[in-house]
Amino acid sequence: MSSTEKILAGDLRSVARLIRHIDDGLPEARAILKELYPHTGRAYVIGVTGSPGVGKSTLVDRMIQNLRARGKTVGVLAVDPTSPFSGGAILGDRIRMQRHSTDEGVFIRSLATRGHFGGLTASTRGAIAVLDAMGKDYILVETVGVGQDEVEIVRAAHTTLIVLIPGMGDDIQAIKAGILEAGDVFVINKADRDGVQKTRQELMMMIDMDKDRKTKKGWKPTIFLTEALKNEGIEGLMDGIEDHRAFLFKKEGTIRDQFERDKAQMELLDLVKQDVVQTIMDHLTHTGQWQEFIEDLVQKKVDPYSLSEKIIGRYLNDCQIPTS
Amino acid sequence: MSSTEKILAGDLRSVARLIRHIDDGLPEARAILKELYPHTGRAYVIGVTGSPGVGKSTLVDRMIQNLRARGKTVGVLAVDPTSPFSGGAILGDRIRMQRHSTDEGVFIRSLATRGHFGGLTASTRGAIAVLDAMGKDYILVETVGVGQDEVEIVRAAHTTLIVLIPGMGDDIQAIKAGILEAGDVFVINKADRDGVQKTRQELMMMIDMDKDRKTKKGWKPTIFLTEALKNEGIEGLMDGIEDHRAFLFKKEGTIRDQFERDKAQMELLDLVKQDVVQTIMDHLTHTGQWQEFIEDLVQKKVDPYSLSEKIIGRYLNDCQIPTS
Repeated sequence: MSSTEKILAGDLRSVARLIRHIDDGLPEARAILKELYPHTGRAYVIGVTGSPGVGKSTLVDRMIQNLRARGKTVGVLAVDPTSPFSGGAILGDRIRMQRHSTDEGVFIRSLATRGHFGGLTASTRGAIAVLDAMGKDYILVETVGVGQDEVEIVRAAHTTLIVLIPGMGDDIQAIKAGILEAGDVFVINKADRDGVQKTRQELMMMIDMDKDRKTKKGWKPTIFLTEALKNEGIEGLMDGIEDHRAFLFKKEGTIRDQFERDKAQMELLDLVKQDVVQTIMDHLTHTGQWQEFIEDLVQKKVDPYSLSEKIIGRYLNDCQIPTS
Repeated sequence: MSSTEKILAGDLRSVARLIRHIDDGLPEARAILKELYPHTGRAYVIGVTGSPGVGKSTLVDRMIQNLRARGKTVGVLAVDPTSPFSGGAILGDRIRMQRHSTDEGVFIRSLATRGHFGGLTASTRGAIAVLDAMGKDYILVETVGVGQDEVEIVRAAHTTLIVLIPGMGDDIQAIKAGILEAGDVFVINKADRDGVQKTRQELMMMIDMDKDRKTKKGWKPTIFLTEALKNEGIEGLMDGIEDHRAFLFKKEGTIRDQFERDKAQMELLDLVKQDVVQTIMDHLTHTGQWQEFIEDLVQKKVDPYSLSEKIIGRYLNDCQIPTS
């Protein structure tokens, strides 16, 4: 069997190797991803994001449990450097994770690198495609929710969970700057703490003010309170995720179609960006022109904006562009 | 006077307008940035980064004070959505900030948008260039230190400060994933809190383990304890920054040359990426081919990797590349 066939048959070693190769940016991985692509699109992808310390990993652990109890298979990708799934664990977390290690219906992997393979976003997309092709029903992607990378990753999820804890005034501020628009479902974890109602009200206000979202997609984000450590509120949260899924996939199909189109656009755009620049850079460094350009810049003989335009003029303007 | 001349003369309204135009991604801004480029390179850029709640803004406030006392002019860029400099302030912070508003030697601006003008990194670089050209001696850039964007921003700084507080085990974990390598000077703020020595020791261990860095650049990161609210430890920190500056700028000049070359490379690469993709996308959307591609992707008639290669084949391969 070819690697592709093995992955489609769910062979764990082949899946693990391919994800490692994607993470390391090996070109072989790309050839297999091409073959897997027609077999993707069946899994439901849930992004779980939030600051360190809000209890994302414990929540993910409970979500796995709940989905397994519902008879679903689960893939987990940890792109959060503080996550016990990805290795940054205190002992208690590690022990908790291990209960899934003998369950064949659960496959957990972490993505460690940044910058290979067109960046973290491209690696994550590739790894999601692999878990999707191997047949997992649900894929949970855990990220730290602050940077632009993370925002792009969660946009690739069908349902995005933003995890908060009571009393994080500063963090709600931070969320405003780009993450809020990406949130479909908000989770206030550690809901036994003081200030949970205040945080809930602040969130509701913020959701109500976000008019763009409501007119754009028609889904008003929902809020759930959980105590993941005690397994409280998880059933309600999972039902809430199913509600969003039902909204996204409802019969008319227009919302889902738009979602799939947006996702395809983002993915293609990122790949073109990566591939085009790689091709040009290879040529420029091979001919030694790149080093000349950098010297000119350092000596301020030219500005970078004009130089970039010059490079485009060389590589693109004289092209005969077929009209297809 | 032209806009460029006004900015070089330090005209505040022209500077503010240009930074706003950069932030909004207006094309006019680019033309002025081209003209300003030869006048840049004099300012010393300090990046200040760390999680929300560590007291970055208070620290920046004290650093401004200290630099002013040393007779230096200061520009401040807040790209941190939780920073009082950029508007996300509680009342006390706002009042503290205002003491600089009548000081002509201080110019403070925030960058709000993401995604325009080739992303936050490009906007920040542009705004740094403006403050540099207007003649500020020091430029402080405040960011939230978690995402990839932020890592790239701090890499554009001469000296990068990573701000922590005692007892942030999780955050030190997060820092490992990319920020640590960018840190030249570590600040443990709120140093009156419990656990300051433990955090200091963990940091020292981490710095000692980071062998790549030591062989690569020859600078071993330093650690300072501060209580910014009480203005304690600031003088020592500023002397520590001067030490790093002296290291970077020492007579032989090789380290500084390499720094300037690396910075120029990153900037040009980002611009080329942005410009090339913009040009290709404009053509593809204008001819309607982009929409066709997306439909093919959604229907899984083709995979995005092959499609990206096809686009490159069209736009690049048939080019007659002049040899300069």
